[in-house]
Amino acid sequence: MRIFHSDEHRGHAGAKEMRYDELIPMCESPDRIDTILAALREQGHRDVMQASRFDLAPVLRVHTPGFVDFLQRCWPLWEAEFGPRGFATAYMFGMRGMDQVPNGSVHSMLSCYTFDVCVPFVAGTWAAIRSAVDVTLSAAQHVADGADAAFALCRPPGHHASADLAGGYCYVNNAAVAAQKLLDGGASRIAILDVDYHHGNGTQSIFYDRDDVLYASLHATPEREYPFLLGYARETGKGRGEGFNFNQPLPLGTRIDAYRPALATALARVRAHAPDVLVVSLGVDSYIRDPVGGFALESDDFPTIGADIAALGLPTLFVMEGGYAIAELGVNTANVITGFAQARG
Amino acid sequence: MRIFHSDEHRGHAGAKEMRYDELIPMCESPDRIDTILAALREQGHRDVMQASRFDLAPVLRVHTPGFVDFLQRCWPLWEAEFGPRGFATAYMFGMRGMDQVPNGSVHSMLSCYTFDVCVPFVAGTWAAIRSAVDVTLSAAQHVADGADAAFALCRPPGHHASADLAGGYCYVNNAAVAAQKLLDGGASRIAILDVDYHHGNGTQSIFYDRDDVLYASLHATPEREYPFLLGYARETGKGRGEGFNFNQPLPLGTRIDAYRPALATALARVRAHAPDVLVVSLGVDSYIRDPVGGFALESDDFPTIGADIAALGLPTLFVMEGGYAIAELGVNTANVITGFAQARG
Repeated sequence: MRIFHSDEHRGHAGAKEMRYDELIPMCESPDRIDTILAALREQGHRDVMQASRFDLAPVLRVHTPGFVDFLQRCWPLWEAEFGPRGFATAYMFGMRGMDQVPNGSVHSMLSCYTFDVCVPFVAGTWAAIRSAVDVTLSAAQHVADGADAAFALCRPPGHHASADLAGGYCYVNNAAVAAQKLLDGGASRIAILDVDYHHGNGTQSIFYDRDDVLYASLHATPEREYPFLLGYARETGKGRGEGFNFNQPLPLGTRIDAYRPALATALARVRAHAPDVLVVSLGVDSYIRDPVGGFALESDDFPTIGADIAALGLPTLFVMEGGYAIAELGVNTANVITGFAQARG
Repeated sequence: MRIFHSDEHRGHAGAKEMRYDELIPMCESPDRIDTILAALREQGHRDVMQASRFDLAPVLRVHTPGFVDFLQRCWPLWEAEFGPRGFATAYMFGMRGMDQVPNGSVHSMLSCYTFDVCVPFVAGTWAAIRSAVDVTLSAAQHVADGADAAFALCRPPGHHASADLAGGYCYVNNAAVAAQKLLDGGASRIAILDVDYHHGNGTQSIFYDRDDVLYASLHATPEREYPFLLGYARETGKGRGEGFNFNQPLPLGTRIDAYRPALATALARVRAHAPDVLVVSLGVDSYIRDPVGGFALESDDFPTIGADIAALGLPTLFVMEGGYAIAELGVNTANVITGFAQARG
């Protein structure tokens, strides 16, 4: 399987996130990519390529112009006002009853376009966002060109980002951009399987009223886990999209014995959708020792997940999402890819 | 003028707030009340009383039951889940397109009922919130009973809190609760004059469609200052409330020479409303050295503000809001009260 990446993510680094009463270094860090690349090579994956450059048109197919403009201008505006200190983050959030149209100030933009304090902006953030899109679209193009599978090894991740809201380490929804690009390139139907530990509220939101993109997710129950307000089984889509959103919230502590049947149910939904391409939002924060996860999957479980996905026989685009247990992140991610590749033969 | 306070605010302490890339001790701290009490005594105000206890019925006249229940249960729920570490604060915010109905978890409640990371909950928060209501209602009762004026020296402050959203150090909107209680007690019209440096978005929201409560505010322009999304001059009320919301956003660096004419304009609006009682949301974070303010008022300017308010000749209830320059907070606050009292003779 060809693996696409980019070095331009590295500048998105150095910010912090709140954990109880402390600010800690962000779990979503550049070394995530390094450790995954090393493990992939270790497992014999040698077809590794730098991404090509794409313009922003595919991004604007799923995100609003105002939001994309914000992503691009946020750090420069912040730096102009406050100097190069710290990182840009919202000080309040435009909730119900509040005006959600920003004025020219960066604070108002952050208040309108982000939904938590886990999407910091530093000098290198926009370049990293763009590189993640390039990586994903390069891999999507490879699949569109006839490859059986490809892996977009990108960061920052994307599945929490909706059309006009960033949050949860996510800015542009890479998987959604790829899905739309594949449709625009001639595909009739896409399925997105999200195996990240967290619900992909952004992806769900983007395609919620559409029947051409199935969104199927396994994730920790919103009663116990971020994003807390979305990810219920009752969220099944609306309008034409009714029946094309499939959430399987699972309890904390879920092990492979309960995870695999849930995955099988999701894969059956994917099969029934008969997509031209399967996009996998690949998070491995379902791992037992993940610092932001609460499931109990072991490293040896991940090849099985890859193999189960492979058994669908669909052209498959893997897009990297979460996974923060740095010591085992590489192996766990590579295990999914290797499990898939071996099953495909 | 009689001054009401309570000692029960003290347990609301020890949490932190984000400032750029650091977590710093909260500016809204218990010593605020101590320094104000000391300065009031220093300036000869000896009529200082502990508040009486009120039930929650007046709070429920302006806040929703679910929100009040959340305020009461937040810390116990947090402690049951995480132990007594840190402070409860939201990890994400229920913005547009998201479900805004909490499930039973404290995280979902925080996501639905708070709009920033500046309303932490610790063990003593609920008792402090209740004490602030007690202080405010005790002072309101004193005015309703015929007193010329009273000062509710309460914390936490209230003016950012809407019917069902806490934020910006504010949980229950003390001034709004008092205004409604005065109406329920027989008043026909109330005016709320908000001289805090920040726009009182919560108070505005609560009375936005009503003509019995005029809200008039002087504050830093939303293009530059928190709460960033509200406080524009164009927000004039809606429905029956059209014309009963009066915002005067002022530029950063505003000095008394520009502030006083704006205050006069607001006071003219108040006079035209012919309220039975004037409620003053008294913030002195308009002071030049306030750590969270950006105006340039000097300590000597505050007696003038008190005197200008006194000249209306209305029964007046002062309710403490912001002010964080601890060294001068007491003097600045007492200066307003003394300026008012001396003008009244």
